[in-house]
Parts: sequence; structure tokens; C-alpha cells
Amino acid sequence: MTDLTPHKDDKFSFGLWTFGWNGADPFGEATRAPVDLRDAVENLAELGAWGLTFHDDDLFGFQPNDSHRKSQLTLLAQLLEDNGMVIPMITTNLFTPPVFKDGGFTNNDRSVRRFALQKVARNIDLAAELGAEIFVMWGGRDGGEYDFSKNYVDALARYREAINALCSYVKEQGYTLRFALEPKPNEPRGDILLPTVGHALAFIETLDFPAMVGVNPEVGHEEMAGLNFTHGVAQLLDADKLFHIDLNGQRGIKYDQDLVFGHGNLFGAFSLVYLLECGNSGEKSYHGPRHFDYKPSRTEDPSGVWDSVAANMRNYLILKDRARNFHDNAEVHALITEVGWPSLALNTLSEGESIVDLLAKPSALDHEPEQYFNSRGSGYVRLQQLATEHLLGLG
Amino acid sequence: MTDLTPHKDDKFSFGLWTFGWNGADPFGEATRAPVDLRDAVENLAELGAWGLTFHDDDLFGFQPNDSHRKSQLTLLAQLLEDNGMVIPMITTNLFTPPVFKDGGFTNNDRSVRRFALQKVARNIDLAAELGAEIFVMWGGRDGGEYDFSKNYVDALARYREAINALCSYVKEQGYTLRFALEPKPNEPRGDILLPTVGHALAFIETLDFPAMVGVNPEVGHEEMAGLNFTHGVAQLLDADKLFHIDLNGQRGIKYDQDLVFGHGNLFGAFSLVYLLECGNSGEKSYHGPRHFDYKPSRTEDPSGVWDSVAANMRNYLILKDRARNFHDNAEVHALITEVGWPSLALNTLSEGESIVDLLAKPSALDHEPEQYFNSRGSGYVRLQQLATEHLLGLG
Amino acid sequence: MTDLTPHKDDKFSFGLWTFGWNGADPFGEATRAPVDLRDAVENLAELGAWGLTFHDDDLFGFQPNDSHRKSQLTLLAQLLEDNGMVIPMITTNLFTPPVFKDGGFTNNDRSVRRFALQKVARNIDLAAELGAEIFVMWGGRDGGEYDFSKNYVDALARYREAINALCSYVKEQGYTLRFALEPKPNEPRGDILLPTVGHALAFIETLDFPAMVGVNPEVGHEEMAGLNFTHGVAQLLDADKLFHIDLNGQRGIKYDQDLVFGHGNLFGAFSLVYLLECGNSGEKSYHGPRHFDYKPSRTEDPSGVWDSVAANMRNYLILKDRARNFHDNAEVHALITEVGWPSLALNTLSEGESIVDLLAKPSALDHEPEQYFNSRGSGYVRLQQLATEHLLGLG
Amino acid sequence: MTDLTPHKDDKFSFGLWTFGWNGADPFGEATRAPVDLRDAVENLAELGAWGLTFHDDDLFGFQPNDSHRKSQLTLLAQLLEDNGMVIPMITTNLFTPPVFKDGGFTNNDRSVRRFALQKVARNIDLAAELGAEIFVMWGGRDGGEYDFSKNYVDALARYREAINALCSYVKEQGYTLRFALEPKPNEPRGDILLPTVGHALAFIETLDFPAMVGVNPEVGHEEMAGLNFTHGVAQLLDADKLFHIDLNGQRGIKYDQDLVFGHGNLFGAFSLVYLLECGNSGEKSYHGPRHFDYKPSRTEDPSGVWDSVAANMRNYLILKDRARNFHDNAEVHALITEVGWPSLALNTLSEGESIVDLLAKPSALDHEPEQYFNSRGSGYVRLQQLATEHLLGLG
Repeated sequence: MTDLTPHKDDKFSFGLWTFGWNGADPFGEATRAPVDLRDAVENLAELGAWGLTFHDDDLFGFQPNDSHRKSQLTLLAQLLEDNGMVIPMITTNLFTPPVFKDGGFTNNDRSVRRFALQKVARNIDLAAELGAEIFVMWGGRDGGEYDFSKNYVDALARYREAINALCSYVKEQGYTLRFALEPKPNEPRGDILLPTVGHALAFIETLDFPAMVGVNPEVGHEEMAGLNFTHGVAQLLDADKLFHIDLNGQRGIKYDQDLVFGHGNLFGAFSLVYLLECGNSGEKSYHGPRHFDYKPSRTEDPSGVWDSVAANMRNYLILKDRARNFHDNAEVHALITEVGWPSLALNTLSEGESIVDLLAKPSALDHEPEQYFNSRGSGYVRLQQLATEHLLGLG
Repeated sequence: MTDLTPHKDDKFSFGLWTFGWNGADPFGEATRAPVDLRDAVENLAELGAWGLTFHDDDLFGFQPNDSHRKSQLTLLAQLLEDNGMVIPMITTNLFTPPVFKDGGFTNNDRSVRRFALQKVARNIDLAAELGAEIFVMWGGRDGGEYDFSKNYVDALARYREAINALCSYVKEQGYTLRFALEPKPNEPRGDILLPTVGHALAFIETLDFPAMVGVNPEVGHEEMAGLNFTHGVAQLLDADKLFHIDLNGQRGIKYDQDLVFGHGNLFGAFSLVYLLECGNSGEKSYHGPRHFDYKPSRTEDPSGVWDSVAANMRNYLILKDRARNFHDNAEVHALITEVGWPSLALNTLSEGESIVDLLAKPSALDHEPEQYFNSRGSGYVRLQQLATEHLLGLG
Repeated sequence: MTDLTPHKDDKFSFGLWTFGWNGADPFGEATRAPVDLRDAVENLAELGAWGLTFHDDDLFGFQPNDSHRKSQLTLLAQLLEDNGMVIPMITTNLFTPPVFKDGGFTNNDRSVRRFALQKVARNIDLAAELGAEIFVMWGGRDGGEYDFSKNYVDALARYREAINALCSYVKEQGYTLRFALEPKPNEPRGDILLPTVGHALAFIETLDFPAMVGVNPEVGHEEMAGLNFTHGVAQLLDADKLFHIDLNGQRGIKYDQDLVFGHGNLFGAFSLVYLLECGNSGEKSYHGPRHFDYKPSRTEDPSGVWDSVAANMRNYLILKDRARNFHDNAEVHALITEVGWPSLALNTLSEGESIVDLLAKPSALDHEPEQYFNSRGSGYVRLQQLATEHLLGLG
Repeated sequence: MTDLTPHKDDKFSFGLWTFGWNGADPFGEATRAPVDLRDAVENLAELGAWGLTFHDDDLFGFQPNDSHRKSQLTLLAQLLEDNGMVIPMITTNLFTPPVFKDGGFTNNDRSVRRFALQKVARNIDLAAELGAEIFVMWGGRDGGEYDFSKNYVDALARYREAINALCSYVKEQGYTLRFALEPKPNEPRGDILLPTVGHALAFIETLDFPAMVGVNPEVGHEEMAGLNFTHGVAQLLDADKLFHIDLNGQRGIKYDQDLVFGHGNLFGAFSLVYLLECGNSGEKSYHGPRHFDYKPSRTEDPSGVWDSVAANMRNYLILKDRARNFHDNAEVHALITEVGWPSLALNTLSEGESIVDLLAKPSALDHEPEQYFNSRGSGYVRLQQLATEHLLGLG
């Protein structure tokens, strides 16, 4: 077992709202006091985290006066410097205050949409000032409970208009910031626009400056729709659109649990870490933050909160170690070859071959079709067992 | 109540495999005999259907000899002509025979991938010959149960290679056929590639000829992931990628039920028909087939099968009538205006206005943010109630 | 169409926490001010409601001083008298304050369990004093996120101990109150104990006084587990354990939506109302309150709140009207007979017949087994279409 | 690491239909040939299995002639004797042939219900003859797609009548057989009666001879409803109704996957094995078969089938080893104590204490309620992390 101590080059980052969550939920009051910023940054740094991220309102509240905003920013900057931490990402809260009850960019009320644009633009200035590279946009209130609440084609047009305008703004200001859209299927709205990695990715292609915009997938959000997160990340890597990633844990299709990474779907966590750390080579790989967007269970007091912070990073490192062992294991290598990874890496058509050429052959099969009955099995179960044992430390 | 009799210009079409399903399921044998093609076409025509669609194997089986294939095609052509029906869409079976147990275009076995390309290409020739305009591709076996069965980035690359090659073939042959990818989250594989409307739409943008490829969404497939089908179709309309549509019914997140359209999620069916028939004007609307891809319940005998065929069309027409009444109703119109549809149709930024201009204003809100507390409600519940009553015939 | 105005004998009741919900959710602050009790009762009465229900804390807060508690109770009593309303049910809040963060009766902390018992017992005294007939117990925090948090066999033992003690208390005090357990699968805990109607019903049989305890099923709670609510209610009727019912709307497996009754799963609402109003005769029918436990969407202001209150009752009455038409319709009657309702009402064995007698016969089938192939269909799709049309007002 | 070789006293059993599944699914033909019974039993025995189970039709088909039935039974008996295996459980197929398309005991057609009773009774005789101790009843077709297909209250009455009659028969014949009902929420029917462990357990209490009937829960069936299987088993243990158990793997709410045990929800598998092996002492523990009811993935050929058989047992043994280490670990023991397992094992009321006594105390809390805010955390996350590391072999 290699070292399980987090280091800066692991690029572990945490949202201020994660360990800072007070525990209020739909059926319960806060169970924890606000976190002191100084304590928080010091704890994070000591535990080995590299980055801190935040929504504007997390740090200085909704509509702060200038002096409070400034003093909070000054304090944060000092704390980060003192503790050797960075701000890799910033995002905007367009969901907590009542004014955003019907969303931000797609609110039926034009003046709220304009207000949302202002709020985001000011936060973009802040992100640029603080050197954040990624600006996440989660339109968590952009959706609805009822299909007739809005014309959803118009809503998508307004969504696009907003992102286009903000991209233009970033370009005009000369910022290097890139955007990452964060999909979620539902909660707090009955249905949220851009509900999955796929929908967000597709939407990007309709923008004016698609190269500036990528996706920030979150483990739990995809799993709330029963989707395979690793497959979703693979599609993002394929499209060069994995700009940021939110790691956490979810246990099936239910409310957003935001568990510690590794405390949810364990096989999914393993294959995800494998994909991020070993699964791919060359250009299509991800080198950005490993960002934990989770909530310490409401039952926990502050010591449990910091236990949970540590657990996220430790689980990532455990899984990374297991993934590398799996990747480097000779038996695994042989079986992966046998089940056909190398064959899948080959083009289906030969160099220069066209469909017309292919059609000229009687059958492209190497064996009679009947041979695939009761024979020519895939070996997938054996490989899955090997993966299970590697995950469980028996590899 | 307007006429509920299906007419040819309703463009109702059915898959040969729908009324032709024999009732075999994972726990049961066939409960029905094969349908006679002549009877089927005559029944369909008599009930008011306009089009018939099929997989190659539905009509002439897997690897037919030439004479059987030809005689079936001749018979079909004659029956369609006699009954005034058309073939708007054709698709290929890459999922039933054992050879495709690990999929078609993304099979780990290269010779199976090549065989799949041949099978599809031959069917494309047939589609062109029969005058089909749309060629649907459902890669139902392209996926897996275990995340290590394949490198999913490579799988997507092979998927793309296949579609690119087929698009080139269609162009070279001078066919006018367009492709429609059909997403599904799972079943028969644990996870299927391109699991939702969004993923398919995003994937199209990575192809060589994206204009040739659109999406064929299916009601139940999106609802199997808990997604809002109407929202998905809105995103397809927004992207001009609704090339075909599969109508049926599903009751929540479970196995693929393929119920009669209107026998599943009734509100969803209503808002879908509204969107297709009234919700949108101008270029971003859909004029293609209303294709029913469902299964007559296994409990039914042939008379129940034809009852179910009729029910699909009748429910569409009932909902269309209700949608039009809703659309034309003055009270609805007033309320839709009040909840802000017209506001959402307006650009958020004024003509020529930039984010910089917007930031120059102290606040874009028409009211103080506090006014959104306990006031300035959306009216969505009232509108939803009005929609409910229109759906229920009280409008 | 019959009268859709709610009347007292419809027995419509509402929880104080329903129209009183302030709109705070996991991602948002309150959007509405507290409801004034006087306004609330007057509005309810005017809209036709019959009963008001509440948790202790809804009315006088957590740990009120005696004078506040008393004044609130006095005010409530006066308002109800003035407006001709009753209190059919009372329940206890064991989930909002931090002390209950790990639950009430099954909290790992014994002193919290004892405190929970005290809180419930005091509320039982209040319920008896106010003449409530049903005392609902929802152990919403009794569960966990992690399987090792507690020994769940012990947790069930503590649950049982608590209810047994409270039953004894009710008996000793001579109260006529009956208890109703309310199941829910998850939220706010990852998994809640007694997650479904079935689990609650089964648990009752392990109690000391099972006759005193029934179930309070909630539409959305069962649908959050993908279960058929009407089937669950049928099983409760079968067991004579439908003691109370919570009506609302849910749209599939996701967070608890608490929509207006009739704004969720419409077919389910229709068959439920049919079952309650027409489906059953004799002893196994339900004559208690039709209690709405829902949340007015957070987007709404007070006028929307009262629109939503009215919508619940109106939808019930519309569905009741449709159910009765369906029940009384001759075509329906004929088809229901044809599909075999009367056959299912007959005992399978004849009077006095035993399995031994039955085994003496060569085959009990009226037809050869082969006749069930392609013949002897059920007619269910035709009946479902008839039900659909009756629901939609075409009956 | 202890021995991971299966032994007879592990009581591992397999259904004949599991490794015998031919791979036919809703979208695909068989991919495997029928298994030879001799090979199967020999392979099973060699791999360390203890028991074999079957449906009548698995062994001799639907309506076999007497000689075929007899020869198959003779062969089986010989094979089992030769290989030292037993038949701990038998079950009846009431779902595959068309005659059961609307179910068995609750079929709307009385003669089918009678036929089902005959079929089951004959199989009970066989079970008694072969020395099986448990007779499983899965009413997989007893349910429906549409709520009006039957009166579900009547359906439950017929279900009860059938089981009562069969219990009487067993008693009269002097058999020692006990019944185990197997719940499943859906598939192959849209909704199945007795959908969860809870519903089955509750139903048992309405029977004439409840002591003769228990539950056969299946991992995947509960997880198809998003329910926590370990919690369900805890409730069965609490009620002394865990009569048999079906182990397999499922990945969330979707079609019935029947994966290898340990290839689905890994945390759930771990806590289940802990509960079965260590979690409970005394009377409320389970000593019966560890029965695998799974399907070897359709992609596999016979060698993959037997790999999957071995994987089920091996994963159980790995998890058992991990569970015991967890159970015996001092740090775990300390933390389990700290989070309050011992407290939860204590009665909430003291010896002889009543609610009246309890009410006489000002507050039962050991601390002020405010102390549960930001303090007195549960430590559950730390324990979950410890469990995770033990599962992963780091304990």
C-alpha cells in the first residue's frame, strides 16, 4: 500500500459550503454552527487539501455591503496565502434567496434574469481577480415542477443567451476563465434543465463560444438518474469537455445525498478513479482539481465534519492505489487483452477501407454466427471478479 | 370534441415488431403466434395508420436466403401499395442473435463490429430502395454490465467511426436518408452507451457529418431514467434534431414497459402532444411521423393486440384535441401571460446591450429582492390546475 | 358533472404544516411568511375543508412555555368552533430540532429516546383533550445513512417498546385514540425504518396491542419506492388497517415532492379514489378523513397557497365523479365482468373442497393449456382504454 | 485472510435455473445451450456447493409424461447422492407457460387458479419426498399492469385462500415443509402483489397458519424498489421469518439484473453478510441455506457460467472474512460502543417504569436540548469510514 496522505499535487479541493453546511434539511433545522473561516482553511490545509472553492454568498452573503465583502475577501486571501492554498474554482449562488425561486437565467421574470446576469458577472470579475481557472454554473432552480410553467424551448434560448453574453464578457475583459456547466436531474426543482452530463454537453455545442464551456459532472447527480457516472465521464473525456469534477457518494435514485466520496457506489468510485488515473493516456485525460462536493452527515458535530473531509481524500487515495495495482497487474493485463480491449482500440475498418469495400466481402465475421452460441464468451464476469478482488485488496 | 378517427395526415406509424411481439419476456414463453403480414397491414390500414416500419430481421429473419428476403419484400411492397401505406423508417436488428451479445458497433470483437457494419449497410440500401426517409439506430447491446468490460472512451470512438463510415456511404450512394440515434439508459445491458436524449445529441456533434444525424427519442426510455420527456424533446427541437419520435407509455423507473401511448404518464403525454402540436411555431417544430413503439401486453390475444393499436392513435388524438382547446382557451392564454411566457420569450439583454452595460446599473431588478418573499408568486399551481382540468375534459 | 364544491361530509382535512410551509428547502431559504392561524382556519373553512391537523411544534413551537402553549390552544379551539371545523388527527414532531438528529424512538442515545417518549405522551394527552381520533406517528429520522450506524434489529425492538408503552398509556388513561404509523422509504434519512406500507403493517403484528395500531399511508411515500399506492391501500383494507390516509402527488422516484393531489400520477390517483369511493363494499372500506399532506410549491405566494389548497379538494371531487361514472357505466360493467372480476371474487376451491379433492382431478383447467396461447386473452388493454377515457371525461 | 474455499457447512446452494439460464432476454435469443444435469451437479459439487434447488419445470418441463418425470427425478437423486449434495428447497413455476399469463393463485380465471393449486400441490408432494425443508412461492405473474384489471382486495383474498389450503394440505399430509414467500416489486408484471419484504411479512399474519410461512427475500428484488436489503432482513430476523434467502447483485432501480453476489451493491453485501454472520446472536439468527439466485451474464459461454458460480461463493467468503475481522477489531468495538450500539440495546424505559412515571420527570434528556446543536455528534461517518476500510481490506 502506498502513501495515503494527501499532498498538494493530488489537487484535492473542497467547497466552502461542504464542510460549512449547517445541517438544515427539508425536515430539520441546522444542527451545526457556522464554520469559522480561519479554522476551516487551517484544518483543510493541515489535512492536505490543495484548493478551496466557494459561491459568492458562502463567503460574504447575499447582497453584502462593500466593506464586508472586501474584508471577507481580504481575510480569505491572507488565509490561503498563509496556508499555501489556492482557489481553483468559483461559482455563483442563484438558488438560495427568494428572488431566484423560479431560477436565474431562465426565470420567467426578465428582471430577475437580468439580476442573475449581474450577479454572475460580478462574480466572474472576482474569479478573475482571485485567479480561479474555472467558473462553475449550476442552474439548480432553472427548471420546473409543471410542464406548462414555461415554454422550455424559450427557456433554453434564454439559457444560451445568458452563457453567450457571459462568454463574450470574459473574452472582452481578457479573462482566461473557462466555464463548466453542472448538470442535475432534479431537486430542488421537479425537473431541472440540462439534467445530465449528456444534456449539458449537447447544449454547449449550441453556444457561440463552445470552446470556452465544458462540464462539471457530479457523481451523485448522474446516479440520481440511475446513470453510470464513469460512462458519462468517458463521454466527456471523449469530447474534451471534462473541465472540472465533483466527487461525492450517492446510494441510488433518491434525494441528493452528497455522501463522502467512497461511501456511496463503491464499484462506480473505483472505475471512476481508474479512468481518471490510469484509464486513458495522451490528450484525453484530466489533470484538473479533484473537487469534493459533498455534505457531512447532519448527525455529525464539528469533529465528524473534519473526519468526513479527511475520509473523502483518503478514499480517493485508497482507490487510486487499488486502480494502479489493477492497471499494473499481469493477470489483469492478460485478461483485459483476452476480453478484447486491444481489439476495441483498433479501427473497425482497415486503413483506406470503405463500406463499399466491406460490402464486397461475403461476411466480415471471423467465425460462423452460430459459433457465438454457447461459445466465444466474453470473459466479463471473470474480469469483474478480478476487479472486485483488486478493489477489496486481494489483488 | 373533434373527430377522433385517425387519418393518413396524422402520420401514425407502427413498428412491425410492436403488434408483432409474441409476448416472450424474461420469465415467460410466447403467448401469441406470429402475425400474418397481410392481416397486419390490412388491419393497420383499416384502423387509420399511415406508415409501417421494421427491422430487417422482423421481415425476413436473420441471414435469410435471397429468395426469402426478396419474396418478403415483394409481398410487403404489394401490401403497402394495396393499402395505401408507406415505409417512413427502417432500422436494423443488432441485438437479437447471439453474435451481437456484446453489441454491434462497439463490440470488443472487431469482426463482429465489421459484420454489424455490413448488416446495417445492406439495410441502408434497402431503406433507400423502399423510400424510407429515416434510418433509426438503436445500439441496445452497446454497453455493459461491468465498467471494466471495455475502455468506454474507445467504445465511443468505435461508435463514431461506424456512424461516420455509414454517413459517408449514404452520401457516396447519393441516398437522401437521414439517421436518428435512439437513446436508452439500460436493458438489455446494465448500462447502455448514449443513455439519454442528451448523450445522443452531444455525441452527434462529434461526428463528421452532424447534419445527417438526429435523435429518435422514446417516451419510456427517458422515463426509465426519471427524466422529463417533454423537456428532452424541447431540447431536441431547440437543436433542430428531432428527426423521429417513438411514442409509448412507461410507469416510472423500472423495466421497459412499452405500454400504449397514454397508458403511462398522462401529464407527460399531454405536455408532449401540446409541444408537438401547439407549443412551438416556425422552424423549430416537428412534422414527421408519430411512431408508436410499444408492446401489446402479453396477457392479450390478437383481438387485444388490435385494440391496443387503436388505443395508441385514439389517445394521441384525444390529447391533441385537449391540447388545442388548452392552447385556444382565453383563460389559459391570460394565465400563461401572467406567469410569464411572453417575458421568457424576450431576450434578457436589450438590443445592443452588453454585460458591461448591464453591470453599470445598480440593480437590474424591477423590485427590491425582498419583494420576492411572500409576494410575486409564480402562479404555476393555478396554471397546473387549469392544465389538469383541460386534460380531464373540464376546460 | 356533479357538484365539485367541497362539503363537510367529504371529510377533507389539511395539516397546519402544509399551507403553512414557508418554502425553505435544501437549497433555498423561506419564500413565504408564517401563516396567521386565524386567516388559515377561516380560509380553510371557506374553501370547504372539514378538519385541521397539526404537529405539536406547528402550533406552539418546540418546548413552548406553558402560557404560550395554552394561548395557542385556546385560540385554535375558538377558531375551530367559530368555523365549524374539527381536529381529526394530531401528530408529534420528532424530526426538526437537533436533539432528534438521529431519530426519536430508535435514537442511539437512550435519553433522547426517553425524551421522545415524553414529547409524544404529552401530545397524546393533548390529542385526547382535543378529541382527535387518530394519532399519527412518522419516525422520519428513525433510520440511517450507513448500515453500521446501529444494530437495526435492536432499533426495531426499541421502536416496538416505544409503541407498546404508548399503547399501554392510552389504554390506562382510558383514551379512545388509535395510532397510525406512517411509512416512508427515505428522506430525510438515507433509509428510514418501516419504509413502506408493507413494513409498517408487518411491524404492527409484532406489537402488544395490534388492534390499536394501523397505518397512515401517503401517496408520495410509496411512489418514492416505485410502488403502486392503490395496491398498498388494497392490502391495508384487506387487513383492516387503513386508519388514516395522506393524499398528495409525486412524479416518480425522486425527492419527496408533496405536490397537490391530482398533480402527480393521475392514473394512480384515479384508481385510488375509485378504490376508496366505489371499489369495495362492506366492512373493508374506509370512512375516515381524506387528509392532504402536501406542500404548496415554493414558487407560490399566499394566493397560490390557497389556490393549491382548493386544487387538492377539487381534484379529489373530480376524480370521485369520474370514478362513480366509471363504476355505474354499463359498458364498463360488462367489460369488468368479461375480464373476470366476478370470477376472482369466487373462492378458488369449491365449498368443502380440499387440495386432496382437487388433486384427484386430472386437470382443473376448463381448457387445454395450449388454448391460452394466442387465445383467451385478458381484455385488460381494452379495459384500461375505457378507464382512460372515463378519467379524461369521455366516458 | 482465512480460507476462501467453499465447504459443505457454508450451505451454499444454487438454483438449477441459475447456471442453467440460456441467456434469452427481452431483446435477445438464447446464447447458451441447455446444461447437462450430470455436468452441472458435478461442477457444483466440485466447486464446493452444498445444495441444489429447482422449479418443477426446470427439471422435467411443463406437463411432463410420467416416465420422463420419473427418469429425471431418478437421475437427479443419483447425481446428488454421488456428489454428496442435498435439495434444501423446491419451488414451482407458475409464470413461464401461457396459461399463467395472468398469474397463478390470483388469476382472474378460476380454472387457472385451480390448475395452479394442483401444480403446486404436486410439487409439494415431490418436495416432501425429496426431503426439501423449504418450499418457495414466488407469484411473479400475480399482479398487473393496470389498476382496473382486477379487484386487488379480492386478489389478496384468493392469494390467502391458496396458501391456507396448501398449508392445510401440508399439515394433513404430515409433511414438515415450511413455505417461504418471495417478494418482488415488478417485472414481469408492471406491479406484483406482495412487492416487498414488508408486504409479504404483513400478509403472512393474515393467514390461517402463519407459523408455517416465512419470507424468502432476494437482494435484487428489494433493491429494485430502492430499499435497504439489510434493513429488510433485520426486520425478518426480528419477526423470526427469515426462512430462506436469495443472494445476488443489483445495480440500482432498473430491470432485474441477477448479477453475481458481490458484483452489485458492495456496501449492502458487506452489511448483509455481517448481519447474517456476526450481527446477531441467540434465537434471532439465520442458519439456513445461502442460496444464490442469479443469472450468469448473457455474454458468457459455459466457462464463464462456472466462473460466475464460483464467484458467488468466493465473494460471500471474502465478505464473511471481512465481517469477522470488523466484528473482532478492537478499534471497531470501541467506536461501535461510542456511537451507541450498547445504548440502543438497552430498554428505553427502566425496569417497571411506565409512561406515567416518565411523564413525572421534567425532562428525560441527559443534556439540554441545545447541546445537541453543534455538539454530541453521532460519529457515524467515522464508523462508516472504518467499515469502508475493513471492507477494502485495510482493517
